[in-house]
Amino acid sequence: MTGWLVIAGLGPGADGMVTPDVTAVLDQATDVIGYIPYVARIVPRAGLVLHASDNRVELDRARLALQLAAQGRRVVVVSSGDPGVFAMASAVFEAMEPAPDWQALDIRVLPGITAMLAAAAAAGAPLGHDFCAINLSDNLKPFDLVLHRVGLAVQGDFAMAFYNPRSAARPDQFAQVLDTLRKGCEADRLVIFARAVSTPDQQIRVVRLADATPDMADMRTVVIVGSSRTRRVGRFTYTPRSA
Amino acid sequence: MTGWLVIAGLGPGADGMVTPDVTAVLDQATDVIGYIPYVARIVPRAGLVLHASDNRVELDRARLALQLAAQGRRVVVVSSGDPGVFAMASAVFEAMEPAPDWQALDIRVLPGITAMLAAAAAAGAPLGHDFCAINLSDNLKPFDLVLHRVGLAVQGDFAMAFYNPRSAARPDQFAQVLDTLRKGCEADRLVIFARAVSTPDQQIRVVRLADATPDMADMRTVVIVGSSRTRRVGRFTYTPRSA
Repeated sequence: MTGWLVIAGLGPGADGMVTPDVTAVLDQATDVIGYIPYVARIVPRAGLVLHASDNRVELDRARLALQLAAQGRRVVVVSSGDPGVFAMASAVFEAMEPAPDWQALDIRVLPGITAMLAAAAAAGAPLGHDFCAINLSDNLKPFDLVLHRVGLAVQGDFAMAFYNPRSAARPDQFAQVLDTLRKGCEADRLVIFARAVSTPDQQIRVVRLADATPDMADMRTVVIVGSSRTRRVGRFTYTPRSA
Repeated sequence: MTGWLVIAGLGPGADGMVTPDVTAVLDQATDVIGYIPYVARIVPRAGLVLHASDNRVELDRARLALQLAAQGRRVVVVSSGDPGVFAMASAVFEAMEPAPDWQALDIRVLPGITAMLAAAAAAGAPLGHDFCAINLSDNLKPFDLVLHRVGLAVQGDFAMAFYNPRSAARPDQFAQVLDTLRKGCEADRLVIFARAVSTPDQQIRVVRLADATPDMADMRTVVIVGSSRTRRVGRFTYTPRSA
């Protein structure tokens, strides 16, 4: 048996947002590897081994995937959203750096609907013009760099999408991000808190920056900050195509 | 008949990247509206009217879609990629601003795989950490603002994805973008030219910034510029999860 490894994005949660390409590789897989809640989305079947692991062990998970593919297994590493946006694809490439044998394997990345796109669609079109995507977690970078990047995004009048805005381990940092935004943005700037997008728990909340509070975000939230041009029309929020 | 309007993303080109949600609304539509090459991707069938129009008439197209939905038709406006990223969703919201009747219609946005995600997946994971998406066209904003934003993205050491990098109408501006990059980035910075991603014509070319030339980009190209950390492993290009 010739092994392969596909790093695939399951989209934000709804089955209707999983691409046919991803469904097809899952149907051919012998092993599915990922973070517990993502592997829980895979329907079990005979001949398929599910390897669910905890958060923060991305490199171990990547090495297991590469080992299994090298042994001839057909392996899918699953991420929520898109595997290339704050997810498993970079961890797999990092894990294969010291190992030329692994680099020679049959490896592909299949894109998925990343959370900010589904959140934006649910709200309207707040990412309708130039935007930045920033991971607010300081797990793998200094928090000062997060604030520096948010400040530059404000200077450039980009719209912004924030991933991992807030967790139990760092409850106070998101308040500092809001402070940074308030230094450079008007009080009416629109902020969207999109929680559990595309699932039955979906909540979309749009507030003025002046009214945004840290408790509006949690682990399952993507935060979108409009540009200075972002506005409301009816029940929708959108950023015009100009400037 | 109760009309509705869905603004849907067809993904970058491959049928295997069209989400089931989008396929389902296309099956129910009476009218599909969009730019000629995107409407050409829709399979004709009895009872379905295809309205293909030229580029640069986005607002006219949006108004037609809203008029037809108000008349009770089931309308899908199609964009390539994701409709909320440099595409039709913002044009539809702009068109409904003066019309409260249109704002009350049943309107939804369905996300799609935007070009930069498919390009990144084909190359590896170059958008694996914080990144900006910038439309290089000066059709709806001053070109100075494009250069300003590129300069800030360099300052923040973001990875970058450039949409509409170059067209026949503005053959020389992309050279200025490359100059701006060269002022702030090392000569070895990795630049990916991803053309016609996910189609049979797909070409992925990875070069050093020092070797990048304007003719490497055209209308069908998405350009991805790595951060200072972006590197190659085997045949892949990726940005590590840290910094």
